[in-house]
Amino acid sequence: MKKKTILDLDRLSAEQFHAAPKLPLTVVLDNVRSLNNIGSIFRTCDAFAVERLVLCGISQPPPSPEIHKTALGAEDSVDWSYFATTAEAVDALQAAGYVVCCLEQVEGSVSLEAFRPDTERRYAVIAGHEVDGVDQLIVNRCDHCLEIPQFGTKHSLNVAVSTGITIWHFFNHLHIK
Amino acid sequence: MKKKTILDLDRLSAEQFHAAPKLPLTVVLDNVRSLNNIGSIFRTCDAFAVERLVLCGISQPPPSPEIHKTALGAEDSVDWSYFATTAEAVDALQAAGYVVCCLEQVEGSVSLEAFRPDTERRYAVIAGHEVDGVDQLIVNRCDHCLEIPQFGTKHSLNVAVSTGITIWHFFNHLHIK
Repeated sequence: MKKKTILDLDRLSAEQFHAAPKLPLTVVLDNVRSLNNIGSIFRTCDAFAVERLVLCGISQPPPSPEIHKTALGAEDSVDWSYFATTAEAVDALQAAGYVVCCLEQVEGSVSLEAFRPDTERRYAVIAGHEVDGVDQLIVNRCDHCLEIPQFGTKHSLNVAVSTGITIWHFFNHLHIK
Repeated sequence: MKKKTILDLDRLSAEQFHAAPKLPLTVVLDNVRSLNNIGSIFRTCDAFAVERLVLCGISQPPPSPEIHKTALGAEDSVDWSYFATTAEAVDALQAAGYVVCCLEQVEGSVSLEAFRPDTERRYAVIAGHEVDGVDQLIVNRCDHCLEIPQFGTKHSLNVAVSTGITIWHFFNHLHIK
């Protein structure tokens, strides 16, 4: 089982990526603070052809040397936009027909593994601040709340990890098109 | 959809976690360099009741202030051990009857989402160095090579993200017991 070389992997250039089919999924960051996490999420969005990353509030957009350190250039391939408030991003996404989901631990949530997105719709998933999570006022406006079940001592996962798991779930149930 | 409070979440103490049922999955780090990544992986292992985290080679074990910064105490709940070489860890795991898998991009790999672990077996998954991945000599000794399909410009995911996705996959197909 020989490891693939970089040539074997035959990845897209940033220009090819912009023109390539995408997953009908937008990822929204509600005041994610850490540039390390933002960069890592850019890299995950690149891997799974996420159509757009929306940075809101204190979530700093590129260019930034700290984002680059973990995004490794994915900030140049993945389409992104910035809104001063997450509420404005949700307004724009809902007006454009997106099903808006938050990733949060709430009463009445749907456990992530049980959620089956409709392949005819476009989705947005909101991940929140490292300590405070997604703001309750934003949660209230979502069509679905998705929760990653957890069985340990800590109250949450790292936001780049939980966002990665969520993108992977959508990637497995939607089609790149 | 009201956000759960810390009291609602009702997490285990470290003592309760040690005594609680676990996922029959051990995570092995083959020379993972970043303490930030190691800490984040501890936190993911805690969330999904991974039975053990095995640190090998340059993967530094706790205690470490840098690991603590991202593990947030999960280094005290998750059982861990250290081997000077990953080969020794693989020897010990295979001798104990584990099915050993690596997470790597190789010729003839199984795409992660298609892999169905046998619920009667115990598994070990090896994640590798941030740049070099899992060493070819270790890959050669694995029972399965699991690959996360990727469609972007970059050659890999952050190791804490790819390990998180892999743990989530096993968590969805094995039982905590």
